[in-house]
Amino acid sequence: MSARGRLSGPVVDTSSSPFARLRPLPVTAVRLDDAFWGPRRQLVREVSLPLQYEYLERTGRLDNFRRAAGQQGGPFQGLYFNDSDVYKWLEAAAWCLATDPDPALDQLVDRVIAELAAAQQPDGYLDTYYILGNQAARWTDLPRTHELYCAGHLFQAAVAHFRATGKSTLLDVARRFADCICDTFGPEESGRQPGTDGHPEIEMALVELARVTGERRYLDQALYFLNARGYGYAGGDEYRQDHKPFRELDQMVGHAVRAVYLAAGAADLYAETGDPTLRETLERLWLDMVTAKLYVTGGIGARHEGESFGKPYELPNERAYAETCAAIGNVMWNWRMLLLTGEARFADLMELALYNGFLAGYSLDGRAYFYVNPLADDGSHRRQPWFTCACCPPNVARLLASLPGYFYSVTDQGIWVHLYAQGTAEITLPSGQPVRLRQQTNYPWDEAIEMEVDGAGEFSLFLRVPAWCEDGAIVRVNGQVAADQAPGSYVEVRRAWQRGDTVELSLPMPARRLESHPYAAENAGRVAPARGPLIYCVEQADNPGIDLRDLVLPIGAEIVTEERPDLLGGVVALRAPARLAPPGPAWSGTLYRTARGVETFGSDREIELVAIPYYAWANREPGRMLVWLRNGSA
Amino acid sequence: MSARGRLSGPVVDTSSSPFARLRPLPVTAVRLDDAFWGPRRQLVREVSLPLQYEYLERTGRLDNFRRAAGQQGGPFQGLYFNDSDVYKWLEAAAWCLATDPDPALDQLVDRVIAELAAAQQPDGYLDTYYILGNQAARWTDLPRTHELYCAGHLFQAAVAHFRATGKSTLLDVARRFADCICDTFGPEESGRQPGTDGHPEIEMALVELARVTGERRYLDQALYFLNARGYGYAGGDEYRQDHKPFRELDQMVGHAVRAVYLAAGAADLYAETGDPTLRETLERLWLDMVTAKLYVTGGIGARHEGESFGKPYELPNERAYAETCAAIGNVMWNWRMLLLTGEARFADLMELALYNGFLAGYSLDGRAYFYVNPLADDGSHRRQPWFTCACCPPNVARLLASLPGYFYSVTDQGIWVHLYAQGTAEITLPSGQPVRLRQQTNYPWDEAIEMEVDGAGEFSLFLRVPAWCEDGAIVRVNGQVAADQAPGSYVEVRRAWQRGDTVELSLPMPARRLESHPYAAENAGRVAPARGPLIYCVEQADNPGIDLRDLVLPIGAEIVTEERPDLLGGVVALRAPARLAPPGPAWSGTLYRTARGVETFGSDREIELVAIPYYAWANREPGRMLVWLRNGSA
Repeated sequence: MSARGRLSGPVVDTSSSPFARLRPLPVTAVRLDDAFWGPRRQLVREVSLPLQYEYLERTGRLDNFRRAAGQQGGPFQGLYFNDSDVYKWLEAAAWCLATDPDPALDQLVDRVIAELAAAQQPDGYLDTYYILGNQAARWTDLPRTHELYCAGHLFQAAVAHFRATGKSTLLDVARRFADCICDTFGPEESGRQPGTDGHPEIEMALVELARVTGERRYLDQALYFLNARGYGYAGGDEYRQDHKPFRELDQMVGHAVRAVYLAAGAADLYAETGDPTLRETLERLWLDMVTAKLYVTGGIGARHEGESFGKPYELPNERAYAETCAAIGNVMWNWRMLLLTGEARFADLMELALYNGFLAGYSLDGRAYFYVNPLADDGSHRRQPWFTCACCPPNVARLLASLPGYFYSVTDQGIWVHLYAQGTAEITLPSGQPVRLRQQTNYPWDEAIEMEVDGAGEFSLFLRVPAWCEDGAIVRVNGQVAADQAPGSYVEVRRAWQRGDTVELSLPMPARRLESHPYAAENAGRVAPARGPLIYCVEQADNPGIDLRDLVLPIGAEIVTEERPDLLGGVVALRAPARLAPPGPAWSGTLYRTARGVETFGSDREIELVAIPYYAWANREPGRMLVWLRNGSA
Repeated sequence: MSARGRLSGPVVDTSSSPFARLRPLPVTAVRLDDAFWGPRRQLVREVSLPLQYEYLERTGRLDNFRRAAGQQGGPFQGLYFNDSDVYKWLEAAAWCLATDPDPALDQLVDRVIAELAAAQQPDGYLDTYYILGNQAARWTDLPRTHELYCAGHLFQAAVAHFRATGKSTLLDVARRFADCICDTFGPEESGRQPGTDGHPEIEMALVELARVTGERRYLDQALYFLNARGYGYAGGDEYRQDHKPFRELDQMVGHAVRAVYLAAGAADLYAETGDPTLRETLERLWLDMVTAKLYVTGGIGARHEGESFGKPYELPNERAYAETCAAIGNVMWNWRMLLLTGEARFADLMELALYNGFLAGYSLDGRAYFYVNPLADDGSHRRQPWFTCACCPPNVARLLASLPGYFYSVTDQGIWVHLYAQGTAEITLPSGQPVRLRQQTNYPWDEAIEMEVDGAGEFSLFLRVPAWCEDGAIVRVNGQVAADQAPGSYVEVRRAWQRGDTVELSLPMPARRLESHPYAAENAGRVAPARGPLIYCVEQADNPGIDLRDLVLPIGAEIVTEERPDLLGGVVALRAPARLAPPGPAWSGTLYRTARGVETFGSDREIELVAIPYYAWANREPGRMLVWLRNGSA
């Protein structure tokens, strides 16, 4: 690993992983100056991180460390896994420092790190719930109290902080704790304590810790924790994916965040070990998810009960759970699958979850979050600035802060472009050759992406043609059509590049209507508007005076786009002629009746509907929202 | 109250209630000898009650009383409200003793009563969770530990036992505890402790205790507990209907069993007080439930989370909760509304819940119960013989045991017939005049009900014409058409009766297709088969080799009935030509796609579907079940 890789590393470092196809770029290699992600990343730095820090203070999450260090009196405050929110905030802050140096933030991060280092026990243990409670009870309630989960978030923060700043202060804390964990847990025959956590997370964290430190031991420990699942150490139930060994899983079940974090960890382990049974299991689970348990927004985890996956096709809309953290976990897992394979389907899903299921969790002003992301609402569901269980806010921050690291990868063949947004990447090819690649685009609003390739020599550009780009993409090199390609794959443009070469990629994005598998009961006879990577919805604010449940989008109706720089931070809205068909008067006061072929719906009225991107809903006055619209005859 | 009324009383005794329109009959006045309810009531006595008793022993529920009495060592076992299961079992046993004397059961009941009497504290207190735990903590956790809820079930059991056997052993225990409660709770200015229970139940129990003992104090206490809701004593949340005062409620919200038990208690209080604000609230809540929160089976409480009502039209099928106890509570509430008003809509809903949402909770062999009653299933949901939280099994038993009490009422005008089943009623009119009324019928399978009226003098028969009897009923007296009447009302047949007069009531019950309000998202484009009071479903066992989700019932298809004495204890099945339209091949491996007007469904195949009554599902080998079928063009 090069010093440069160390000092400004990628989100997931497969640079030396024998079974990963792609190698990522450092987060700092990509500078986004677009109008979509750029301002949101700025909002994270300027609004969300400071506000989240206030909540960490106000809710005693930081005091827990001070108390554990003996610097302050008082008991543990809050939920037993509250340490993890501090770690996720640190990780977010670290990635911000990587791309946007900020001495004040750097100083604050140093102080928080010093405070938590002071709380670390002589043997490396660090969990303020137990330090302030009963240390003799350490590691006695793995199914429930998230000790290893919290440790995992510490390790991820430490890796990020080291990669971002080159400082090893937090990494040293992480290593001491990781060593303590390695000394503690192992198979029974090792004389250590068998066990694994009720909430997966440490698996992927330990793999990255191994990568950044070169310690094989951490990798082995991650593998041990994965292999220990299915034997009851973590609770023995589906909820915690402990009902059977990982390699025997054939469905995505249980708590959705746990399930995708576990899968992400297994993908990391495959990258290092090449164990085909891991790869097969991951493929099986991924197919189960995308064919029966995925919201059209990329959200996952349909059920409120247990924050869990439902049965196949169980995808309620108003009652969707679709936790923001689960969408984030979905991005994390698919990013790893993409690094393993270079297959566009994983990048497609990553993009879908990013722009929709994930992004809806974050308010336009950077001050509030959804925990739950329904696809229909009566106006009562609103974002909150914080939660008692505050996993989502800092998780949103760390993903946005590290987002530049998800745009590109390299292989010996060349450069892979996964995501599109205006910005500049400084890429070092495996040959050592530097390439500067600039994207000029108004994506996701516009189909045209112009890339300036500033580098010499022969290599390929692999450009993702999203599956939603159903009519295929057009690629021009220096104005000449160079290739076109089926959607859902990477188009390869190989040539001996010369300074100033330009590649124009066109990803036609007509407005579409999506329909869903007929077994998805709530979506029968309905369509969801979409354009490019964005899923759209109708919201009361744009469609005043009507009940959105009465909207019918006629099958033949032309949907037109409308640039609305004034609206919701600047969006392309969709407009379409539609009908308003309320329940017929006979339904008044009636829930069921004998079907006699009489009209179910009342007389139609023609209107024009306006749809906005789903991610932007609930940023104005409360009102109904609906993704799946009734599909009617013209 | 007459000695007879005391010794063999009704389920809810409105005989002297100034604001109830109807007066009930004693449970013993009605003997059912039909082929539907009769065998089920026998099953309760011969199979369910003995098995339930075994579980009460095996799970320590009875030992808790022995331990509380100091007859045995050891701590409290199970959930804090486990006493209530013993009380509900006692209530069921008492009603069985009323209609079917059984010396062995009588002796067992006496022994159980003696055991719980021995556990009663000197001041009358009786709750083994606190007696065996911390008595100083009595009444300190009203929102959660169900102390008054358990007391309510004790009182109901005591009233039933006294009415059934004339013995006051359990009633004495109940009075001592009720006195203790009255001494303890009251408004702050009374110097007593303010409070009310997290789980309503004691309200209706105290009203009945007042009726059977003549103690006004118990009625006042019931009213106090109702009035104390909405001020945070019971937890302050919607879940426990404590978020606002009862009279300000405008929607059925929160835990469904709690909500209907509370409404039942309020109805009992209206019968005694005539407080119009109670009646108005009950009407508002009832309308909210039946127009937006009721399953087509009469089940209620859509959500697993909190076992609660959902939002309007939130009625998932496979994910329905529809707890058996909630359907029972629905019967209880509607029975009381019927007694107050004599309005057929309440009897209609009572009948719907009885034959469908409730009865599905009970296996055909009397050995197993559903807690949750979905309207679609993949074959994994099966009845269980017992539950850790075992509210449903003894609740099923007490309703079936007391069922004869729900068939008739009297007023000064005459006799009201609410339910139909073959059997004989010995009725004393308010004038003191005895009437013997015999129903000859194969209801619910057959539309013909012949009634022999054996009594003299002028009075009316009020015969319920169910709302489902949409073409109206035909009534013949001694062979002459006497009246016909709109569905959803009581037809009055008034005459000077002579011995041997017969009334023939015909309630045409063609097979119907029910459709639901278009806002009920999962039912859009679907119909539920029904006939008479029964809702039907398709089950895999009758429709082998196909995926039930692919079934389409063409709009014009004729549904024919088929008597199947061999099937599921004897049912009338429904048959109809149908189509099998599986998802088109393009859906393979696909959950969402762009709608292009291409076929959603694959090629059709014609088949014949067989539907069975919903209550009978899951009594054979596991397989899919579906109530709401796709409605297709012919």
